[in-house]
Amino acid sequence: MNRHLSPAEVQQAETLFPPLTDSLRELVDLAIRSEADEADVRRAHALIGEAARLLGSRVAPHPGIRTAGDGGALTWGNVLIGNRNAIAPPLRVHRDDTGKVWADLVLGAAYEGPPGLVHGGVCALVLDHILGATAHRPGEPAFTGTLTLRYVAPTPLGALRAEAWVDRDDRGKTFAEGRLIDAAGTVTVQAEGIFIRPKANSGTRR
Amino acid sequence: MNRHLSPAEVQQAETLFPPLTDSLRELVDLAIRSEADEADVRRAHALIGEAARLLGSRVAPHPGIRTAGDGGALTWGNVLIGNRNAIAPPLRVHRDDTGKVWADLVLGAAYEGPPGLVHGGVCALVLDHILGATAHRPGEPAFTGTLTLRYVAPTPLGALRAEAWVDRDDRGKTFAEGRLIDAAGTVTVQAEGIFIRPKANSGTRR
Repeated sequence: MNRHLSPAEVQQAETLFPPLTDSLRELVDLAIRSEADEADVRRAHALIGEAARLLGSRVAPHPGIRTAGDGGALTWGNVLIGNRNAIAPPLRVHRDDTGKVWADLVLGAAYEGPPGLVHGGVCALVLDHILGATAHRPGEPAFTGTLTLRYVAPTPLGALRAEAWVDRDDRGKTFAEGRLIDAAGTVTVQAEGIFIRPKANSGTRR
Repeated sequence: MNRHLSPAEVQQAETLFPPLTDSLRELVDLAIRSEADEADVRRAHALIGEAARLLGSRVAPHPGIRTAGDGGALTWGNVLIGNRNAIAPPLRVHRDDTGKVWADLVLGAAYEGPPGLVHGGVCALVLDHILGATAHRPGEPAFTGTLTLRYVAPTPLGALRAEAWVDRDDRGKTFAEGRLIDAAGTVTVQAEGIFIRPKANSGTRR
């Protein structure tokens, strides 16, 4: 864990970096799909190197998560919801009063496994996060205990919904269920998992 | 699926893009960890936009996977092994004569969930791929049927090994087991899965 960031530093980071990260997501997609001329690719590579030198002029020590002055962990690097992580789609997680959690997302070429389909492991990645989110309590992080996935139909690239709900909650263990649904309304993956909130811990889950 | 690429196009793509993608992986990491001055961040953002314009000057139709002239699918966009996908660590998958499959990988800030730890969903992503690789046969893609994960210890960011082996193979179904191991040799996640090779299909898995 790194030093605490001041409110001004947090605000600057949260203003400047998310739009840069959006551009970076586009670049990740284009690096896969581009058929540009050799000269353009070489020039793009040089620009990427120059951008890395600029961002690398001052860098937080590894690994990633930093905390604000109040000690709260900042989730901007999170692989699923981080607004500074170009790997993150990013997931916008919604909840209702009943404990149901869901997110609508669009997965492009960068999440592909078989031709035209989302990689099975990416389905697992998304569902782990959404099921886990049912167990999250402020200040009480939850960790995955077990996760079981049943792939019942291919998951096409494009618009998807991930959703989860609590089956039961038992002494710090949340038994969650959920599923991934494609744009046509077909359930493609069913999931169930047990998520555990350790008693003595702090910070945020994921 | 897009048009077939000529051998010259494939060779150019495989020479030019993997080094660019390595630089892009560095940039993804820095976008999370950078504490650069505002002016440097804005300049980096502009360079990223310019690189995207160059790569976007000619682009394959969405979605991603392309085929070579011989009809074989190119895995360069794959989310785990793709050498043109900046999300991919990338995984270098090894096999031995006994059917054992393994990969050594290093996961940095971009794969973080809880502070200092790999996101549980990323563990699932990697294990799905490695277990699935035990079932892959040339020309016979395998799809995940079920996947069960038991998280037995936190997975620290850094060097990891993922490994898997075949428990049994039964009429196109491979029953695979595997695990994730940290740099200290601790097993952090145990996995088992069933992978299915459809009879009438072509292309490559993942």
